[in-house]
Amino acid sequence: MYEGALTDLDVVELRKLIHNREVSAADLVQQCLSRIEETQESTNAFVAISAEWGLQQAQACDMQAVNGQFAGPLHGIPVAVKDNYYTADFPTTACSEVHKGKPNGTDSTVVSKLRAAGAVIIGKTNMHEWAYGATNEVSSFGKARNPWNNDHITGGSSGGSGAALAARMVPAALGSDTGGSVRIPSAACGVCGLKPTFGRVSRAGILPLSWTLDTAGPMARSARDLGLLLEVMSGEDPRDPTTRGISPYSQVERLGHRVRIAVLRSDELACDSAVAAANEEALKILEGDGAMINEVSIPGLSTGFGAWKTILHSEAATYHARFLSECPEKYSDNVRVQIEAGRCLSAPSYLKAQQYRTLLNQKIGAILERHDMIAMPTLPVTAPRIGEHMLKVNGSSITSQDAMTSIAWIANSCGLPAVSIPCGRDDAGLPIGLMLVGAAFLESQIIAVADRFQKLTKWHEMKPV
Amino acid sequence: MYEGALTDLDVVELRKLIHNREVSAADLVQQCLSRIEETQESTNAFVAISAEWGLQQAQACDMQAVNGQFAGPLHGIPVAVKDNYYTADFPTTACSEVHKGKPNGTDSTVVSKLRAAGAVIIGKTNMHEWAYGATNEVSSFGKARNPWNNDHITGGSSGGSGAALAARMVPAALGSDTGGSVRIPSAACGVCGLKPTFGRVSRAGILPLSWTLDTAGPMARSARDLGLLLEVMSGEDPRDPTTRGISPYSQVERLGHRVRIAVLRSDELACDSAVAAANEEALKILEGDGAMINEVSIPGLSTGFGAWKTILHSEAATYHARFLSECPEKYSDNVRVQIEAGRCLSAPSYLKAQQYRTLLNQKIGAILERHDMIAMPTLPVTAPRIGEHMLKVNGSSITSQDAMTSIAWIANSCGLPAVSIPCGRDDAGLPIGLMLVGAAFLESQIIAVADRFQKLTKWHEMKPV
Repeated sequence: MYEGALTDLDVVELRKLIHNREVSAADLVQQCLSRIEETQESTNAFVAISAEWGLQQAQACDMQAVNGQFAGPLHGIPVAVKDNYYTADFPTTACSEVHKGKPNGTDSTVVSKLRAAGAVIIGKTNMHEWAYGATNEVSSFGKARNPWNNDHITGGSSGGSGAALAARMVPAALGSDTGGSVRIPSAACGVCGLKPTFGRVSRAGILPLSWTLDTAGPMARSARDLGLLLEVMSGEDPRDPTTRGISPYSQVERLGHRVRIAVLRSDELACDSAVAAANEEALKILEGDGAMINEVSIPGLSTGFGAWKTILHSEAATYHARFLSECPEKYSDNVRVQIEAGRCLSAPSYLKAQQYRTLLNQKIGAILERHDMIAMPTLPVTAPRIGEHMLKVNGSSITSQDAMTSIAWIANSCGLPAVSIPCGRDDAGLPIGLMLVGAAFLESQIIAVADRFQKLTKWHEMKPV
Repeated sequence: MYEGALTDLDVVELRKLIHNREVSAADLVQQCLSRIEETQESTNAFVAISAEWGLQQAQACDMQAVNGQFAGPLHGIPVAVKDNYYTADFPTTACSEVHKGKPNGTDSTVVSKLRAAGAVIIGKTNMHEWAYGATNEVSSFGKARNPWNNDHITGGSSGGSGAALAARMVPAALGSDTGGSVRIPSAACGVCGLKPTFGRVSRAGILPLSWTLDTAGPMARSARDLGLLLEVMSGEDPRDPTTRGISPYSQVERLGHRVRIAVLRSDELACDSAVAAANEEALKILEGDGAMINEVSIPGLSTGFGAWKTILHSEAATYHARFLSECPEKYSDNVRVQIEAGRCLSAPSYLKAQQYRTLLNQKIGAILERHDMIAMPTLPVTAPRIGEHMLKVNGSSITSQDAMTSIAWIANSCGLPAVSIPCGRDDAGLPIGLMLVGAAFLESQIIAVADRFQKLTKWHEMKPV
């Protein structure tokens, strides 16, 4: 039997141990539950959890394993689910008061797929109310706190999933991403997150924010785990007509040629110096490993950011119109103000924003014809302090909400896959993220490069004390 | 040589005569030019024409024919083009002052395809300014007049094409259709028109009105001609990414089974008694010929009509924003007021309208799973008098604009193909149209039934005296 701490291992390692019956699912879940007991109060990562039910699921997995039966690649692996994915065994509220106390729904498509692959759904994680914000300071269950420093935000909206991974409470979690909500907390908490190509993973059974931008993605502690999880999560789904049955994603693979990485340079994407330095260093490591690094610029990113916001607010206001008229008191001021702003946007503004989106996507598409991926920092800063709503980045003032999304939105606007992985820490010890944006449906390429980086640097193994 | 009047023949007959060299293209064009000379003043059907250039093109066709060379199925056939299709040899203004005096553009994709098939582009036809209205009373070239009675409107927006066909000025014409603009003047002028499936025919090089509703379609004097023209016009086009390369349309064909026609009954679609009676009679004729007739209803059509208008005005206001700010004085009041209304629509209204559109399309899709097509009148009335802006239909008041589009919009909302053919006349002698709406990309089925109806009744051969 394996003697080390299971909570430090990634899914790929755990899978091997469970399949070789060196580790039982019950032991793994028990160790996770102990970590949750130790760190839940300081992080507020979970909003619903059942130790008993988690252990029951794990014991059922172990019974199957005794008979040599393994449900799939996630057999016995505990997974934490963001609170906007419907689950049959936990309430689903998107951390809003609106759905509190309502009966549980049936599983979202992704949760069904995870269960079919053997996953143990251990609980629901904290998130920014309705996923409508990137700080996770606003939640009907209270703010999430960063395991690296509890005075700092986790980033959001999938902040609970980021905190749960960083604090070694679970090896895998689900997030959703409309303008960075998987990648922002991944960077801020020093873990790994993947926003898949639009159309790769079904959104059926996930409470929406903005349906032309929303994607569902995995979060984990290694790039290779993201590949494993994506393979389980993805596929065409009649319940989500935007999904496409494009050639199935297959496990992390090496590129067949020297990887060509475009590095995005833009005055419109100012970063603080620690973030810039860690990203430069990461690219040097990849270059030293044989990658071709080439600087590119994309004019019009500020307008594109505005267009992304117009689309987000217009679609969110449309979705929330009924709830907001029925129970305005159940919305936080933070979210309600945004919805009310969205109601005032004009139809031509929305349509112009969609047109601008197309134009920008063509520019980025042209870069991806000559490169395998585009590298940029996930965030321009490390996790801000809780309550610090205005930041200075390179001398300019920016809200923490805008700072969190100021780079990540690009992949949502374009529908492209993007991975965020840890690549350093700032002077205060807070994690820094590197983002790789790939061509549509080529998740395998960005994951391969991220995986290679993790073999060279081990930044992903760092953990809060 | 053929001795009859060529201007009474349809394209299928003319093609045969030209290919057998019983008729020369020059004779045909000359006869058309004579009809244009006789009827242009009373109808105002054309806004640009060149007799000399028309004859030159025809003579070139005849030279090829002498050598046994025929460019394609439209070799030597004169075609009139709506003034919103770009043409290399005529100005393109959409009958607005905004583009007047600007240089000619290059051919729209459809015009290129017609020329490649041998068509002689004889001139540009009148239309409602910017295609933004269904009466053709508003045009920078003056209103179009109905050849059946010059005190009545042609319907629109492709009113000039409808008038040119009814007055025997040309055997074929192009229209565009956002809420009935091909079918409305076809019904009002007693000719045939086809709105193809969204995605069947390229819109590249056609001035847009509302890009999620716009389609380009043929107008002619027989259903079989619509099939021939559609075959030439359709196909995937990289210049219009909405086009799809679905199995090529092939010539008018008989259905392989007893045709199942759903007849739409709805209190929301009130018609005057002459229109209702002619449509009933048409369905009896088809039933007598073996068709299965089955009444259906579609709840929510009024809301759907509102949603169609919201989409139209939102998209049109987006497209016109720049021109309207640059030169508001070049817009008619009629069009400017609509654009200004569109600017005030909210983004959530637009998005709700698109959502309602999806719901309605599902209902209509369910009907088309059990039937081959849905029959309904093209218009609830015959062509109103010029200047008669409020009508009474079945006791209710309605604007002439709303009356024209009140049924036809359904096919645009659903992206489905629809054909309008003549099926009678009212007491004043004005033509009445029957509309058949088919399943996506099954134009061949509705054209086959329309063609069969025309073999049984000859209503399409009626002409104004």
